Amino acid sequence: MTGKVYIVGAGPGDPELLTVKALKVIEMADVILYDRLVGKSIEDMLKRMGKEIIYVGKNSYENGAERQRNINELMVKLAREGKIVVRLKGGDPFVFGRGGEEVEYLIRNNIPFEVIPGLSSVIAVPTSAKIPLTHKGLSSTIFVITGRNLEDIGKSALNGTIVVLMGKEKIKEICRRLIELGKDPKTPVAVIENGTLDNQRVYYGNLETIGDIVEKNVKGVALIVIGDVVELGKKFNSRKL
Amino acid sequence: MTGKVYIVGAGPGDPELLTVKALKVIEMADVILYDRLVGKSIEDMLKRMGKEIIYVGKNSYENGAERQRNINELMVKLAREGKIVVRLKGGDPFVFGRGGEEVEYLIRNNIPFEVIPGLSSVIAVPTSAKIPLTHKGLSSTIFVITGRNLEDIGKSALNGTIVVLMGKEKIKEICRRLIELGKDPKTPVAVIENGTLDNQRVYYGNLETIGDIVEKNVKGVALIVIGDVVELGKKFNSRKL
Ligand SMILES: C[S@@+](CC[C@H](N)C(=O)[O-])C[C@H]1O[C@@H](n2cnc3c(N)ncnc32)[C@H](O)[C@@H]1O
Ligand SMILES: C[S@@+](CC[C@H](N)C(=O)[O-])C[C@H]1O[C@@H](n2cnc3c(N)ncnc32)[C@H](O)[C@@H]1O
Repeated sequence: MTGKVYIVGAGPGDPELLTVKALKVIEMADVILYDRLVGKSIEDMLKRMGKEIIYVGKNSYENGAERQRNINELMVKLAREGKIVVRLKGGDPFVFGRGGEEVEYLIRNNIPFEVIPGLSSVIAVPTSAKIPLTHKGLSSTIFVITGRNLEDIGKSALNGTIVVLMGKEKIKEICRRLIELGKDPKTPVAVIENGTLDNQRVYYGNLETIGDIVEKNVKGVALIVIGDVVELGKKFNSRKL
Repeated sequence: MTGKVYIVGAGPGDPELLTVKALKVIEMADVILYDRLVGKSIEDMLKRMGKEIIYVGKNSYENGAERQRNINELMVKLAREGKIVVRLKGGDPFVFGRGGEEVEYLIRNNIPFEVIPGLSSVIAVPTSAKIPLTHKGLSSTIFVITGRNLEDIGKSALNGTIVVLMGKEKIKEICRRLIELGKDPKTPVAVIENGTLDNQRVYYGNLETIGDIVEKNVKGVALIVIGDVVELGKKFNSRKL
């Protein structure tokens, strides 16, 4: 009998930010495939639970496409052995995470599957840093882009909050483009490193200054928030208005 | 001694989509303030847990501003009595939910507080309906707006996925504007009613057809997803590619 694959969002890294449902499915799983974004705290938790876990994250001998193919094939192979497979993915599985590609492969191979949402870093990381992505009088829209497709930066979102994933390496170019598009160079920017983890750090600056700050300091996984709400979040953090 | 207020995201309504952390804080709470968006399933769970709960949602005798003022004052009053107060909010507390305003009030009144992220409907509801907000070749951006500020619809997001909250009543106007802005009238649209709950329903259409479908059928809380990813989500749902 064929098993089943659960594509599960692990949230941004803090094990307590797993959902009750994710935890249930993990407990039920015969084997768990996870990658680096899931983070060390959750990895340690899985080990303590005595689960069979397989690391399928980045390594030096595969490129991205090969790695994804290997993950897809492994999920199918394990499910065909009758196993309950949990494919644990950082954040939400359907947000900038190739979750859709995994589902396509499962459907093509007739494998039963379920998708379980997780806390996406897009929202949970700013909230953990006390930055409200929307706030009356400051922003009523959220525009989410990545550092991989800079053509995506357009004009319409210029008044609202912008969230950038995978943008650390391109931060200077992103800021320069936004200024060219007419955004105030003094627009506040926050970069949240290792969001929700014990070593979370928040760096504040503006479109002109944040690039240098990031290049000098940020080593870990990071998310960028651009907009006036950042200033409010800074005040919330210092508990002074 | 002053107590503490936890501003906690309850997620989109399914009690199993509460985070482990939210559940811990709820167990610890002396009193829980909640509103309608938190949903009946979670309300029932709180009752079964024997918690003291206070409904602070919409009613007929207050307007929005009055209601918010009353919530703010109640949180402060209870905390000053030394209580552990959980302010439970639908989705994530910092996304279109006045969470920032509540934090401002707590800071002004010197009340210790913490903010705990929750699964926002923005992402969790589409994922539960198997719609990937981003997908290779289909969309690499997410633009989140509400039906309250139609001027927010701009041009830059036209190629990516658009998510609309609080848009049910304005759906025809939203679709008309997007077509005027140059979007293909056949662009797929999904409306997800009661997302993640037992009575979740997904309606599919396009910018021309969805308005009538929604007016005729949708009574409950609803979220709108616009973009090519909707077509893929529909296939994922029927498990046929
Ligand atoms: C490939 S994307 C996957 C996103 C994921 N599916 C989600 O919903 O959060 C990876 C990017 O997410 C962001 N990210 C994920 N977890 C993070 C964390 N704990 N702190 C800061 N940024 C994080 C970073 O921008 C990182 O480059
Ligand atoms: C005032 S906003 C609050 C959003 C909330 N803070 C969040 O992060 O999800 C309320 C809107 O969220 C959306 N929404 C919330 N829960 C939903 C659900 N279970 N199903 C569909 N839409 C939902 C609807 O568009 C609704 O009008």
